[in-house]
Amino acid sequence: MKVIFLGTAASKPTKDRGLSSIAIQYKSDVVLFDCGENAQRQMISLIKPSKISSIFLTHFHGDHILGIPGLLMTMSLNERKDPLSIYGPEKTVYFIKNLLRGGYFGISFDVHIKELKDKDVVDFEDFYIQAFETKHGIPSLGYIFKEKDRRGSFIENKAKELGIKGKMFSELERKGEIIINGKKIKLEDVTGPKKIGRSIVYTGDTLPLDIPFRGCDLLIHDGTFLTDEDRNGTFHSTVKEACEAALRIEAKKLVLTHISQRYTSDEIQKEALKYFENAIVAEDFTVIEL
Amino acid sequence: MKVIFLGTAASKPTKDRGLSSIAIQYKSDVVLFDCGENAQRQMISLIKPSKISSIFLTHFHGDHILGIPGLLMTMSLNERKDPLSIYGPEKTVYFIKNLLRGGYFGISFDVHIKELKDKDVVDFEDFYIQAFETKHGIPSLGYIFKEKDRRGSFIENKAKELGIKGKMFSELERKGEIIINGKKIKLEDVTGPKKIGRSIVYTGDTLPLDIPFRGCDLLIHDGTFLTDEDRNGTFHSTVKEACEAALRIEAKKLVLTHISQRYTSDEIQKEALKYFENAIVAEDFTVIEL
Repeated sequence: MKVIFLGTAASKPTKDRGLSSIAIQYKSDVVLFDCGENAQRQMISLIKPSKISSIFLTHFHGDHILGIPGLLMTMSLNERKDPLSIYGPEKTVYFIKNLLRGGYFGISFDVHIKELKDKDVVDFEDFYIQAFETKHGIPSLGYIFKEKDRRGSFIENKAKELGIKGKMFSELERKGEIIINGKKIKLEDVTGPKKIGRSIVYTGDTLPLDIPFRGCDLLIHDGTFLTDEDRNGTFHSTVKEACEAALRIEAKKLVLTHISQRYTSDEIQKEALKYFENAIVAEDFTVIEL
Repeated sequence: MKVIFLGTAASKPTKDRGLSSIAIQYKSDVVLFDCGENAQRQMISLIKPSKISSIFLTHFHGDHILGIPGLLMTMSLNERKDPLSIYGPEKTVYFIKNLLRGGYFGISFDVHIKELKDKDVVDFEDFYIQAFETKHGIPSLGYIFKEKDRRGSFIENKAKELGIKGKMFSELERKGEIIINGKKIKLEDVTGPKKIGRSIVYTGDTLPLDIPFRGCDLLIHDGTFLTDEDRNGTFHSTVKEACEAALRIEAKKLVLTHISQRYTSDEIQKEALKYFENAIVAEDFTVIEL
């Protein structure tokens, strides 16, 4: 499982940073979080557009969404037939439909657009994605990417002792329990500890807020500004606030993104390490393996 | 006067080529021709967005227009107040309005959108831009950028001989003629040969066509394909056809752009030189001084 930062700038692109987009690659599936202008070019030789099954949008400022029509046009030129799902906050249907009426794009596949609210969950086979409301002055969402927990491995000796063999394993797996010689055996009795699925929280652009998830492996947080003075009333977080959020929800790792062009990465990194030791600054093409 | 190629790819961006956009910088004014996705980033440190007075669009395929909303958002973040004009073929108003309804962009200035037809002329102070219909299967235009011709310099001896002095020069300039001692003197009588303005023709994407301008300093022509087989029924030109167009209209120089990613620049260059010696292949950030 890989997290690939395709764009890490705030509001405007710079020479070094493209506009917001993050890909999570899980097995052969790719889910895109935000799709700023030029995302399709940033992903060249990293991600095949055909692998992207869905796009989750945090909000409709241009720097988070303007890569969508171009990406869909390229998918069509590649003769994609698989449907694509686009999720986002209130007004997502209206905005996406307008964007796709902005030219002759000849989209060759179905686009399913769905608006999400706080706590809504989108289920995938091996993981789910849950939305939570953020604070950005317009309808906006953050997302929890959670790999589903899986049962522990079979403890073979114990299973054998209780008389489980052959097809009984799959029956036990399916039903959760099995009766052997009149005795009920539960799946938990013969398997080790549950394997906790990996988890990523992405805030998108936001003021600090209560993130409804604890202990994630990775928190990707708005780290636009160094000071409240620079924030100047906008709906973004300071690096310190992002670190405080990581501490509060006991995140194992923090990646700061959406970096204002007024700072160098070093300045952001130095500030972050004052508060949270496992923090790094996202650069375009940073890859985090989980 | 400079022509700056901001994007030279066909349809999809590649590692080396961004999407179609060409800037003509004339004195302190910049006119953009097409504005593909990521144009705003391609122009960093080359062109200040505030200098762009107008954008001329050849047609509404995504690779020629999807940089517009992001560029306008960035202009707004830069607190632009000057109006911006956008020109293009039939349906330009509909498409641009939809694009600008695709998110919360907060445009801070007036956007004047105008649809042009074959032969329409947009007048600027020192130059004009004339549209001509092209052949791309959808409404599409090419553009002639023509610096206005200027009168020749005063031939001082001749003017003095005829008694012209002081404020008479500006009167003659203003009226085109002046009467001295009962004798009519025309401006042409005392000035050298007319200074012919520089001229650029940009076809946008098109099949070969009759370009309604002869002797331009620079022809920028669709050179997407090497063979008719590769063209495969699409509305583009081969390199050979572009060269034939340059010969036909007696262009002084030819720049091929909108290069299919299946070819190297060397292949295109070699093919072009078979037919027209003053041909070059555009790369991103190629600058032509005229």
